[in-house]
Amino acid sequence: MTISIVGMGLIGGSLSLALKESGFAQTIIGVDKQVEHVVKALELQLADKMALLDDAIQQADLIVLAVPVDSLLTLLPYVLDRVDRQIVIDVGSTKRPIVEAVRQHPKRGRFVATHPMAGTEYSGPEAAIRGLFTDKYTVICDAADSDEDAVTTVKALYEAIGMKITEFDSVSHDVHTAYISHISHICSFALALTTLEKEKEANRIFELASSGFASTVRLAKSSPETWIPIFRQNRDNLLDVLDEYINNLLKFKGLMLSDSYGRFEEYLREANDIQRILE
Amino acid sequence: MTISIVGMGLIGGSLSLALKESGFAQTIIGVDKQVEHVVKALELQLADKMALLDDAIQQADLIVLAVPVDSLLTLLPYVLDRVDRQIVIDVGSTKRPIVEAVRQHPKRGRFVATHPMAGTEYSGPEAAIRGLFTDKYTVICDAADSDEDAVTTVKALYEAIGMKITEFDSVSHDVHTAYISHISHICSFALALTTLEKEKEANRIFELASSGFASTVRLAKSSPETWIPIFRQNRDNLLDVLDEYINNLLKFKGLMLSDSYGRFEEYLREANDIQRILE
Repeated sequence: MTISIVGMGLIGGSLSLALKESGFAQTIIGVDKQVEHVVKALELQLADKMALLDDAIQQADLIVLAVPVDSLLTLLPYVLDRVDRQIVIDVGSTKRPIVEAVRQHPKRGRFVATHPMAGTEYSGPEAAIRGLFTDKYTVICDAADSDEDAVTTVKALYEAIGMKITEFDSVSHDVHTAYISHISHICSFALALTTLEKEKEANRIFELASSGFASTVRLAKSSPETWIPIFRQNRDNLLDVLDEYINNLLKFKGLMLSDSYGRFEEYLREANDIQRILE
Repeated sequence: MTISIVGMGLIGGSLSLALKESGFAQTIIGVDKQVEHVVKALELQLADKMALLDDAIQQADLIVLAVPVDSLLTLLPYVLDRVDRQIVIDVGSTKRPIVEAVRQHPKRGRFVATHPMAGTEYSGPEAAIRGLFTDKYTVICDAADSDEDAVTTVKALYEAIGMKITEFDSVSHDVHTAYISHISHICSFALALTTLEKEKEANRIFELASSGFASTVRLAKSSPETWIPIFRQNRDNLLDVLDEYINNLLKFKGLMLSDSYGRFEEYLREANDIQRILE
């Protein structure tokens, strides 16, 4: 199968490596609108060749759109306008605005909305790594709106690169990702800012940074180009979660102010329950 | 050298392994007030023998107090009452209340206040691991209040287990650790609670949890017995940081509500600067 990947960054590049390694793709055609990415992707052998978008659409059996979610809103209809038998998937972190953008499109059936739940805090072709997707979940959304053959092929693709598949409707997907992905980026960005602001008056502060701090603040290295469009598209869900998060912080603050450490400890024990879910 | 370690949990147990491996200690005597820890520490060979506190003090050249910081307030004076030539160190995450507790003690010079900046989210003897301290920083606080020979020996101890040494006064230490350690635990605990509360109505939520979420929420697995006393002792500093953190979150919220994504992106770029400090 020939697969064209539009956007040779962390996700597009890593997907390319996985698809070649698994043998699911015989040929990978890369597309990127940034010259630096085109050059880098070839240098790193992330694609067999780089092409312009229209050619890449025509030559592919399957087209992966791995661009920021704001670009998807125009790119996806553009690509669907040009496909015939080909299958198109996106790998964006929001789903409702994406499927809305092509709800009435005559080629809607050729599109499968997906979200492989994998990533790192780095971006660009240099961030592409082998094994990024292995044993992780991928979500397929609103599968009933896609042609059956397209869904079957897309499932086979993700299984070929070692992913587990789960299905959600796009509305639930966006609520859930607000809770278990988007908010944690907000937490990290805000924590980084808080500490960096303090550093201005106390420049030795980071000498004491431990692995725990590094872990909590890790996502603050993430690309604003990727995340601002996600925050924008999932704004309403994210604002709900953010309010609940701030309320929990205010609760902690109130308990400290009133020296209610017994009650505070009960909350921490409840929070410990996260062990049940994460190794 | 014979070293007694009081508290055979994550830190005490890991320190024991490191001190034996480095050859700095010929004999490790363990002390713990919990029967389960005594049995487990022997089973895991974390100490050459377990003893009762008073005997462990008498038989040691150096005594490490690796207990929660609230227990330190009474344990440290108790131990100093019983030492003569021996050196005593603590490894607690707060420093000002600890040094205050023995400021007037006639044996204050035998005590060196330290804080090895290393740990994991796990606790108890089973959490002890080899190499926990290698290449990390340890802080020595208010060194001028300790006898010179004691400081020299304690520095040699930490160097022997591969740590880098930095010195702070205890007041600055507590301000800095509020920013780069204590607040990140608060962030994680609150994030875990927020997500677990949502799970009650949407039980499939964690299917989508990615490695980014796991990283941000990791510290929420930490022991409340360890952390509540730290939050309590460092309350005023932590409340300052918590206010700044909440203000940053409210700023993000306001920017989303007013669709000011340009300004929001600038903040995220500022936050990206954390890359400068953390690999």
